[in-house]
Amino acid sequence: MNLLVDGLQYSNWSEEIFRQLRAGGVDGVHVTIVYHETFRETVTNIERWNRWFEQFPDLIFQGFTADDLAEARRTGRTAIFFGAQNPSCIEDDIGLVEVLHRLGLRFMQLSYNNQSLLATGCYEAEDPGLTRMGREVIAEMNRVGLVIDMSHSAERSTLQAVELSCRPVAVTHANPAHWHPALRNKSDAVIGALAETGGMLGFSLYPHHLKGAGACTLQDYCAMIARVAERWGTEFLGIGTDLCQDQPDSVVEWMRTGRWSKRVDYGEGSAAAPGFPPMPEWFRDNRDFAHLGAGLHAVGFAAVEVAAILGGNWERFFRRSFGARPEMAATGRAAE
Amino acid sequence: MNLLVDGLQYSNWSEEIFRQLRAGGVDGVHVTIVYHETFRETVTNIERWNRWFEQFPDLIFQGFTADDLAEARRTGRTAIFFGAQNPSCIEDDIGLVEVLHRLGLRFMQLSYNNQSLLATGCYEAEDPGLTRMGREVIAEMNRVGLVIDMSHSAERSTLQAVELSCRPVAVTHANPAHWHPALRNKSDAVIGALAETGGMLGFSLYPHHLKGAGACTLQDYCAMIARVAERWGTEFLGIGTDLCQDQPDSVVEWMRTGRWSKRVDYGEGSAAAPGFPPMPEWFRDNRDFAHLGAGLHAVGFAAVEVAAILGGNWERFFRRSFGARPEMAATGRAAE
Repeated sequence: MNLLVDGLQYSNWSEEIFRQLRAGGVDGVHVTIVYHETFRETVTNIERWNRWFEQFPDLIFQGFTADDLAEARRTGRTAIFFGAQNPSCIEDDIGLVEVLHRLGLRFMQLSYNNQSLLATGCYEAEDPGLTRMGREVIAEMNRVGLVIDMSHSAERSTLQAVELSCRPVAVTHANPAHWHPALRNKSDAVIGALAETGGMLGFSLYPHHLKGAGACTLQDYCAMIARVAERWGTEFLGIGTDLCQDQPDSVVEWMRTGRWSKRVDYGEGSAAAPGFPPMPEWFRDNRDFAHLGAGLHAVGFAAVEVAAILGGNWERFFRRSFGARPEMAATGRAAE
Repeated sequence: MNLLVDGLQYSNWSEEIFRQLRAGGVDGVHVTIVYHETFRETVTNIERWNRWFEQFPDLIFQGFTADDLAEARRTGRTAIFFGAQNPSCIEDDIGLVEVLHRLGLRFMQLSYNNQSLLATGCYEAEDPGLTRMGREVIAEMNRVGLVIDMSHSAERSTLQAVELSCRPVAVTHANPAHWHPALRNKSDAVIGALAETGGMLGFSLYPHHLKGAGACTLQDYCAMIARVAERWGTEFLGIGTDLCQDQPDSVVEWMRTGRWSKRVDYGEGSAAAPGFPPMPEWFRDNRDFAHLGAGLHAVGFAAVEVAAILGGNWERFFRRSFGARPEMAATGRAAE
């Protein structure tokens, strides 16, 4: 069974998009439910998803385990896996890691673009590395089965997290900086560390992460993936489209600025182009994954490799990552 | 397999009490995690239980389904089922019903002693019956599998809840008012309604609910149960000890007064005896269930009936009550 899994989306969800997920044959998708939300606000976002699950039971359901991908295929639906792009949702309370995992959270970034209580974001001038709380939370995430996602974190924090974590780490949505040197793209050191430790790299389709932005060609994008595969192998590669479909520009403002500044922060955009950038014409929405498959074939990937990159590798990663490992309990680990 | 299940406890939990649960052979217990707590405070209480589950995995684990009772017996542990004595934990947000059910809440009272947003408590002078929100929340509790517990609610609200609910209702801890006319004990009308609808009545051992309080004899208590069984049958009867072991008197003040009054409210106590009342000498803690079994035999119950009252009836009720029933979705039920 060739499963189709997207490692990250944050769309303005609607029945139309859920139907496009089905039309595109997407078996599972990691969706963002947190940018800057507190715990209580995160729960309100979960409640909104619960209403969608209740309203569209023939299209979507909440995913908790890797088995839910096969269940999605069997029942012709899409499994929705929750993730947070910021640890704001656990506030200053390590006990919320287990509570949110119970509610279905399966990915959490240790930081968004700024310094968090746990780690440093890629927009900060200085990266002091993991904080004291960050080290504790990594152990707790390892224990309960919550994936550490370093997509938006800075280099030193990221490398420390990969080293300290007992379980593989993911970068759900980014590209190599050697291809397109955006702040959000990843160094060869980070990519190599993910490859060596059984982690995952989800290649992004967010235009700011693409060489040539929305004008990037399918051939260029797939050749970039092929070069990563040649150097580090195919087993740790997936797709994380970062699709932000149908979102108003007010949402990208919230993503970038939250409540942390009164000024405008353009993030990866600019004063001249402050909103969501236009997607490449070969990937408009969830019905376009077939283009990706064709593009990967065209640059020389074998059918079995294409299947792995489009979903098989994520499925294997989900299977190793989402279950509890009580033996990883961090009793007495805190520094004196 | 004769399972032993207690329909309600609120002790000052400790390793010692968890060991007493094991010594007494208690397979499952419904524990209170909410008296007046908001949602966020409730989550903090859940976090405290999560630490106990992590710390004492050989003694206790969290129960979610009826099958966890047999699992408890098989592994020599006690399954802990969460419940709320007050709907304060859902605040004004019906979406929190499903969220708390996901976190393991399996019982929720529609009111404690006072008027709530949903229903009327037994200490209010007037009982206007279920509120608009109360009717909506009953439908949502029915849908997700959260048991409606009317232990502390007033008569009219209770009878309306039994009538409106599509699934059986529980009174987890109370006795018949015809035996001991405490405000908290239940009328024949309520007992009959529970019996007719497949509900449950858990007989309380809280001294204020006993004729003669802590001096009540085991024989008197068991004869009271026998009279209820003669009139309404045995199938809906269980035990809900309301054991509040090792609690300081400051806790009974919180239970009674929460944040709703600046004055002292003595509840079932009095200025002369404001604290927790002393338990009957034949039921001091979880190691004394054997006394109850012997007492029930002595008043004439057959062995199969004793087994049903001490756990089998709760097991059957858990099995019918804790699972989702999506077809009970309350779409469009709200009054215009």
